[in-house]
Amino acid sequence: MARTKIKDILLSDKTDYTVNVKGWVRSFRNNQFIALNDGSTINNVQVVITLDTDEAITKRITTGASISVDGTVIASLGKGQKVEIKADNITILGDCDTDKFPLQLKNRPSLEYLREIAHLRFRTSTFGAIFRVRHSLAFAVHQFFNDRGFVYLHTPIITASDAEGAGEMFRVSTLPTENPPRNEDGSIDYKEDFFGRCTNLTVSGQLEAELGAMAFSEVYTFGPTFRAENSNTARHLAEFWMIEPEVAFNDITDNMDLAEDFIRYIIGYAMQHNREDLEFLAQRLVDEEKQKPMNERSELGLIEKLEFVLNNKFERITYTEAVDILLNSPANKKKKFQYEVKWGVDLQSEHERYLVEKHFKKPVIVTDYPKDIKSFYMRQNDDGKTVAAMDILAPGIGEIVGGSQREERLDKLEQRMKEMHIPADEMYWYMDTRKFGTVPHAGFGLGFERMVLFVTGMTNIRDVIPFPRTPKNAEF
Amino acid sequence: MARTKIKDILLSDKTDYTVNVKGWVRSFRNNQFIALNDGSTINNVQVVITLDTDEAITKRITTGASISVDGTVIASLGKGQKVEIKADNITILGDCDTDKFPLQLKNRPSLEYLREIAHLRFRTSTFGAIFRVRHSLAFAVHQFFNDRGFVYLHTPIITASDAEGAGEMFRVSTLPTENPPRNEDGSIDYKEDFFGRCTNLTVSGQLEAELGAMAFSEVYTFGPTFRAENSNTARHLAEFWMIEPEVAFNDITDNMDLAEDFIRYIIGYAMQHNREDLEFLAQRLVDEEKQKPMNERSELGLIEKLEFVLNNKFERITYTEAVDILLNSPANKKKKFQYEVKWGVDLQSEHERYLVEKHFKKPVIVTDYPKDIKSFYMRQNDDGKTVAAMDILAPGIGEIVGGSQREERLDKLEQRMKEMHIPADEMYWYMDTRKFGTVPHAGFGLGFERMVLFVTGMTNIRDVIPFPRTPKNAEF
Repeated sequence: MARTKIKDILLSDKTDYTVNVKGWVRSFRNNQFIALNDGSTINNVQVVITLDTDEAITKRITTGASISVDGTVIASLGKGQKVEIKADNITILGDCDTDKFPLQLKNRPSLEYLREIAHLRFRTSTFGAIFRVRHSLAFAVHQFFNDRGFVYLHTPIITASDAEGAGEMFRVSTLPTENPPRNEDGSIDYKEDFFGRCTNLTVSGQLEAELGAMAFSEVYTFGPTFRAENSNTARHLAEFWMIEPEVAFNDITDNMDLAEDFIRYIIGYAMQHNREDLEFLAQRLVDEEKQKPMNERSELGLIEKLEFVLNNKFERITYTEAVDILLNSPANKKKKFQYEVKWGVDLQSEHERYLVEKHFKKPVIVTDYPKDIKSFYMRQNDDGKTVAAMDILAPGIGEIVGGSQREERLDKLEQRMKEMHIPADEMYWYMDTRKFGTVPHAGFGLGFERMVLFVTGMTNIRDVIPFPRTPKNAEF
Repeated sequence: MARTKIKDILLSDKTDYTVNVKGWVRSFRNNQFIALNDGSTINNVQVVITLDTDEAITKRITTGASISVDGTVIASLGKGQKVEIKADNITILGDCDTDKFPLQLKNRPSLEYLREIAHLRFRTSTFGAIFRVRHSLAFAVHQFFNDRGFVYLHTPIITASDAEGAGEMFRVSTLPTENPPRNEDGSIDYKEDFFGRCTNLTVSGQLEAELGAMAFSEVYTFGPTFRAENSNTARHLAEFWMIEPEVAFNDITDNMDLAEDFIRYIIGYAMQHNREDLEFLAQRLVDEEKQKPMNERSELGLIEKLEFVLNNKFERITYTEAVDILLNSPANKKKKFQYEVKWGVDLQSEHERYLVEKHFKKPVIVTDYPKDIKSFYMRQNDDGKTVAAMDILAPGIGEIVGGSQREERLDKLEQRMKEMHIPADEMYWYMDTRKFGTVPHAGFGLGFERMVLFVTGMTNIRDVIPFPRTPKNAEF
């Protein structure tokens, strides 16, 4: 008999039919009631076994064990469930030694401990919910762009170009480490390396996405990106997934509209498809925050926060306006900022949080940053001082999107690259798009894990990617 | 006025409405007829300009230039199109110097030449079609698994484990190359490296996907994988995308059924959504094959080949049966095989092609390979000699899927790892899934680019990924 998913059984009101279910035992009460989970939903189905079931079987029904159940779906008399399964036959698929099973702990295991057993944490309700939500968000990304006619472009992971000067990169090589081939001057001879040159892991697919946008008009990437920064924080990963749409003919306003529509769409999708997971995570957050002082707790519950984002336009201000707000803020006057607020200097995390969490109390799009703190490819504004950049800042997360209109004017781009010492000859392919039918265009990057953090209400980015890569950690 | 996509204009019979279109000029005839493309479709829209248009504008309407057109959609009198646009106003967005534009060649540029200008080849009809089809196939992958309740799992790219012993790997490091830190014995001190150990780029997400399947029952990966093999062939890339579903409770037959359903679904999706692109590619293939001798041409056209796969079950044979067929084949008797056919030795490409292209003339699933030529994690059959492996072989491509039922029995797995010198202690996390509620399960990997090759009828894998990575080549 073919397996039926527990989700499908629980979603239906139908009773009095036979099924086969398979899954892992979450608990076994009174030698009679099994809570069985197969990962298709956060909810367990209750399996009721007859009291005359062979003890050789019942003693093997332990938390973590896998079983196959043939039975009949019947109306449940218990509360919290409409239906349950009366077992006719139970087969043990895999035993689980409760003394050794790390998830068989009397006390609720901490998130820190679960990180150490990331290979097993999927089986907890919390991580089940997180990764089902992550799945839905990822699917929604593809659905959103596909519906709008964007072409999904797989930009290269291994690259010889340092797209943004975005910081430290991981080197990719097959040269022997102990005794690599050297040039006459003693330097490493990368001509002997696999790709015949020095290569790194990409920090962004943007520049290659721009090449695609110059033919397909609308493209997006969704792939892994890398930063070899020694940042051991709750917001940084060395390996993370990024989504980068790039659209020909869009200006910075179109770009902001697209980003807002996109963020609302994927949050709305998860709200629609993962309501039970999100409600569980909302309760988890409430429980976690009980340990915090009142004034540090979230003002809105998780569901309310997501609904708020769905129903309210993001605030849009220029960098110059943001600096004015910060300079005139009570926080600044009381000298509560660690870093100075000053036009021309990048906003620090504390400043962004003030704008988003204290001043506007909603997501904020900051535009038109000073050109000297932004990348060479951003379009120069007429004031000669700023560029058409945009950052989206989210409550509790900080920067979740960074984007810009791109400099499509060859002369302006060349001049800026010269000023910023970007080697134009190595990037002839990028310049070519400005030579042959250049068009205004714009795009942005969204850090996928930060979005998953925002939607799940988790606070450590290591808890929203299956197997996090961070300094000194590449386990599993 | 907001831009309308050319695809939407051409798809509709509607006329007599004003539009704005933007795109790149493919050709300009008689100072009057512009063929304009914006990448949304393989078809160009014809823009008709009035003969009194300012010469300052018309002389800038060159192949490759980008323009914006305000005009009226009218019924077309020309053949091959239902509608065209009567231009009211034309703005030049970006000029294109025809003397320097590499795609402004009188002769049709070769695929080899277009590979050198991969940053511009998206603008040709051939590569426009290929990458729209690639997009559709990728979207169909997600749609297929999402519809069936699979969880998309982002397995790690940087890894410390050599999953399959699948061959040469790329090392990932931030250690200084010139003078790396060394241990007392002179060896490199990887404890000083970013992750505190030696790390590589993944060759497969399977083992981590198995961890997910042990909680969610159905998971899949779709991400980049890497091989540092010095294979300069038309079928190998150093960086390619792979799809790896993994399903708890599935046996090898379920696995074959899933793979067949999956392949048919994504081909069917492209047939439905990219008919014009595929028809163009079919004609391209016919033109290309005209240069070949009759007996080397494809028996079926591209569309017919895809329809054949949609409408016919794949042949399923065991490795042992395959060897018998090959031993008894006319090709073998006439000593046409370069490599010996012998039970226990892996099938060579020539053998696979014989089975698929000459003997069965359809995709073939070969199962139950000798255990000694397959990976440690494949489930051992009762005969003691073979494992529950399956390879799917496709005409013109060779192996497109490799999969197996996994060894879920701890004792059998440990014994096999010992025999094959796989370090069990480093893989404690993999073994844990067999200790705590193990279940039968199965999965497979599909090389995405090989699938794109199959569907587009292209013959070199470098032509179906945006920016191919191959030995001595990491351009763009």
